[in-house]
Amino acid sequence: MSDPVQAVALPHAVDVASVVLGAAQGALFASQVAKERKIDLVGIAMVAIATGLGGGIARDLLLNQVPAALQSNEYVSSALVAAVVAVGLSGAISRLDPLVVAFDALSLGLYLVVGLSKASSLGLGSVPSIFIGILSCTAGGVVRDLLLRTEVAMVTVGSFYAFAAFSGALVYMGLLQVANQGVATWMAVLVTFSVRMLSIWFGWSTPHA
Amino acid sequence: MSDPVQAVALPHAVDVASVVLGAAQGALFASQVAKERKIDLVGIAMVAIATGLGGGIARDLLLNQVPAALQSNEYVSSALVAAVVAVGLSGAISRLDPLVVAFDALSLGLYLVVGLSKASSLGLGSVPSIFIGILSCTAGGVVRDLLLRTEVAMVTVGSFYAFAAFSGALVYMGLLQVANQGVATWMAVLVTFSVRMLSIWFGWSTPHA
Amino acid sequence: MSDPVQAVALPHAVDVASVVLGAAQGALFASQVAKERKIDLVGIAMVAIATGLGGGIARDLLLNQVPAALQSNEYVSSALVAAVVAVGLSGAISRLDPLVVAFDALSLGLYLVVGLSKASSLGLGSVPSIFIGILSCTAGGVVRDLLLRTEVAMVTVGSFYAFAAFSGALVYMGLLQVANQGVATWMAVLVTFSVRMLSIWFGWSTPHA
Repeated sequence: MSDPVQAVALPHAVDVASVVLGAAQGALFASQVAKERKIDLVGIAMVAIATGLGGGIARDLLLNQVPAALQSNEYVSSALVAAVVAVGLSGAISRLDPLVVAFDALSLGLYLVVGLSKASSLGLGSVPSIFIGILSCTAGGVVRDLLLRTEVAMVTVGSFYAFAAFSGALVYMGLLQVANQGVATWMAVLVTFSVRMLSIWFGWSTPHA
Repeated sequence: MSDPVQAVALPHAVDVASVVLGAAQGALFASQVAKERKIDLVGIAMVAIATGLGGGIARDLLLNQVPAALQSNEYVSSALVAAVVAVGLSGAISRLDPLVVAFDALSLGLYLVVGLSKASSLGLGSVPSIFIGILSCTAGGVVRDLLLRTEVAMVTVGSFYAFAAFSGALVYMGLLQVANQGVATWMAVLVTFSVRMLSIWFGWSTPHA
Repeated sequence: MSDPVQAVALPHAVDVASVVLGAAQGALFASQVAKERKIDLVGIAMVAIATGLGGGIARDLLLNQVPAALQSNEYVSSALVAAVVAVGLSGAISRLDPLVVAFDALSLGLYLVVGLSKASSLGLGSVPSIFIGILSCTAGGVVRDLLLRTEVAMVTVGSFYAFAAFSGALVYMGLLQVANQGVATWMAVLVTFSVRMLSIWFGWSTPHA
């Protein structure tokens, strides 16, 4: 379906980037919640690491592999450093709010394509690959919400996460039929990022039940 | 312990049936919750897929296999179609309430025997097999309750789920000693189904702590 | 990195001990919660088993192995017996409160070293090994809190669990460079136990965000 070498070559740098962005976002989210509830610094660090690594670990478990996050020291370390930097700079970052939202949307797209390409390169069908891709980019946020006992963003109105990821996944699967993996990958990141950003910009939400 | 070919032959159609029934039940449950809380259609679909596939994925992860649900396109697709149909027909289905309850109890029994037979056919002992069986048929509901932030039905009074499953599991393990797998399987489904239906009919609940 | 035979030789008895202590603690915790909420005896048993086995199952899944808890009948059985004994003796045990706290702190240390030694013996780096170790000894409690819908102790102020485990993990990793595994193991258990006990004794808490 796709060149496994290329598929495996892609994920590493992209994967670390999604983990770093995810952990930073998790740390900022947890410190917001901590203002009203009793959550300590160790707790924020744990939530950040779980948010950053959750999606990738869920993905690799389903693919029956030792999680990439455990095969080198850099993933957990990067997640922890990202969390500490994010909390340390949170005063400055809150003034940089649009940048944080952009990083979050970018992380969504990156995590998605790593999941899609890993699943495809292991020979999974298109539907399970899309399932893995969407799980990859949403599971970290679900773990974060469960640990913090906040509404699970993925299932609540207007989150638009899953829909943005699904759009990106369809683009990836479609382009893979007619173009090379590089084009499919970056177009999928672009579409996911754009749908997510536009949904925030225009205040879109998915239809209510 | 049991014929692996038969054990593997059983699960497929039965497994898909449990996934479909589980996803339909998850979708209906989520749309009920959505009336009072902000959960959108994408959220209902995610909850339905998680409810339908959760038990089987948990089972296969513990058995250290790539989940059956990811080895073909049909599981995720069937779960999604079941969710859409269930929500679409929910007006009619609510008038068919007893049928939904019956489907749910049937799904409990089917998921149980797939878990039991898969675990046994891989050579696991009787206690771990029962553990896997009960996990198979309850994990989907636990994931559903966590995502929706409702009481976890498995641990609350009167749910009677785990007890029905445990009864079915004991029947399966007992009959396997004296009869063939087919008899054990269908008697276990019957007992699980009956205990669950009778518990609803008579308003039984397990003893309160 | 360490002698695999020794590393595998250590866990078994220690692993069962952590499961038993964890399950007993989960059962007592659940029966406390059950006084105010509708949780039945089957629910308490399910929570106890999940608390006792959760950490070890999470650890083995990440290490891509069939969980030790499923490779013999004794783990699930021991967890269930521990739960029944704990609930049965809960009148007496509540008067033995300091002993329960001590058992809990001991379980934390034991679960930690099993995780650390298993991860190291499979060739994982030091950072992922520490991650696995801390996950091993905290995951059971997280599952317990999710099932019971109580605050997740690991992320809330003053829990000091993760910090105690982290201290023990650093001691283990440090001593492994200069001493044999036995010394590293027991010193790590001692440090984890002591930090946890002292934090309760003196009412320490980790810095609030």
